[in-house]
Amino acid sequence: MQSWIRFRRADGSIGHGRTDGVGSDRVIEYDGPGYVDPRPTGAAYKLDELHLLAPCEPGKVVALWNNFHALARKLEKPVPTHPLFLIKPATSLAGPGDAVERPRSYDGKIVYEGELGIVIGKKARNVSVAEAASHIFGYTIVNDVTAAELIAADPSFPQWTRAKGFDTFGCIGPAIVPGFDWRAASVKTRLDGVERQNYPLSDMIFSPEEQVSRISQDLTLMPGDVIAVGTSLGVGSMKDGAVVEVSIDGIGSLVNHVRG
Amino acid sequence: MQSWIRFRRADGSIGHGRTDGVGSDRVIEYDGPGYVDPRPTGAAYKLDELHLLAPCEPGKVVALWNNFHALARKLEKPVPTHPLFLIKPATSLAGPGDAVERPRSYDGKIVYEGELGIVIGKKARNVSVAEAASHIFGYTIVNDVTAAELIAADPSFPQWTRAKGFDTFGCIGPAIVPGFDWRAASVKTRLDGVERQNYPLSDMIFSPEEQVSRISQDLTLMPGDVIAVGTSLGVGSMKDGAVVEVSIDGIGSLVNHVRG
Repeated sequence: MQSWIRFRRADGSIGHGRTDGVGSDRVIEYDGPGYVDPRPTGAAYKLDELHLLAPCEPGKVVALWNNFHALARKLEKPVPTHPLFLIKPATSLAGPGDAVERPRSYDGKIVYEGELGIVIGKKARNVSVAEAASHIFGYTIVNDVTAAELIAADPSFPQWTRAKGFDTFGCIGPAIVPGFDWRAASVKTRLDGVERQNYPLSDMIFSPEEQVSRISQDLTLMPGDVIAVGTSLGVGSMKDGAVVEVSIDGIGSLVNHVRG
Repeated sequence: MQSWIRFRRADGSIGHGRTDGVGSDRVIEYDGPGYVDPRPTGAAYKLDELHLLAPCEPGKVVALWNNFHALARKLEKPVPTHPLFLIKPATSLAGPGDAVERPRSYDGKIVYEGELGIVIGKKARNVSVAEAASHIFGYTIVNDVTAAELIAADPSFPQWTRAKGFDTFGCIGPAIVPGFDWRAASVKTRLDGVERQNYPLSDMIFSPEEQVSRISQDLTLMPGDVIAVGTSLGVGSMKDGAVVEVSIDGIGSLVNHVRG
């Protein structure tokens, strides 16, 4: 299966490329991200020569809350009738290996949320569920990091955007896999090597196609935008220095650490 | 007082320019927006030859809730200890004269909120209140349009982002005025010619400098980003076809209409 990456070379310049999937170490360079119909530049690299970056450059990350049946049951929340979401700004992005930086102003719990990410390939506005698949470029992994104690810090206004919008709180990567079959896959999150999340994506409330269709009724999704489809059971807090790895078989592993 | 605009020419091309303020009809063209240190191109236009666009291209609009004492008292909400905000995406932008498009999926109340907008000129991350002024390029007018009935439509998750994030729900313009003295100014909103809002900006809870400083502790503000500082008393709903005009003396008037 093809896999698209974005990388920084040793000289600091940034490029895009394609590998032949998990386990392949050969990178064919292209002149743009996979969703803009790029052409091969003729260059090739070994994967370990390159520093991986977040594999796309979203203008926004649409992050869903309460999109798994098991979590809804645990939280005793009703199954939503429309995707419930907030926006993480482009400035929140972090790539594979990057530090999650503790905000200077916050000494509370910082929480990991391992998730599947949908990467938009083609502008989507008011698209039907049937049309949605053609607007999805592929799938990636997201750690939707959250300053959990801020959400309810003000009793009159839940601060979802602030809690999830800090710089480096939107970890994305390592690669985008077009045609990935999410139905058979699970999300696994390890905190300092210990498995803390392991849930099947088939438990999703709104499927990726339903999400793209429904959200595109609300706002236009642009190429490179990411939908973080929500997490399930096992969310927990990360101490400063902790290493967190979110894995989805067929996409890869996204590893980040917390810097206090 | 200088005033910066962005415009479309008769041939469809887009440009940037400066006027000598409200009432001046001569536009000096520049090769970029005012906050990137642009140079005059040598061209000049009459204002009425040009179709005005939103005067900047924000990556995000940070929209505040509950930032005026009079509104906090009316809503019986405590004065917040930190700006309470959500993000309106770049895709929500509309310019002067543009239609506010009713979403196909929504037949409830669509509400105007006349507001002052802060336009960021220089990247701001963890800046102090004293430093904040140098990161503000100027001030504009915002109509922070809201699908009011969506906010509380799901009892478990207030949908601020969805309610305020629809395409065309972020009306901005007509111009950006550097050095604008907001302390002496008022925001007036007229609905179909009838004044519905008229409140002094001096009633703001967090000043623009405090907003830039506090929000820059949470997320990086980029050049062109807009902070919508929040509204005060007099918010109301707009029927399809309604014309709404938000005015601030010294900046101008932002006129939009609702298309059902």
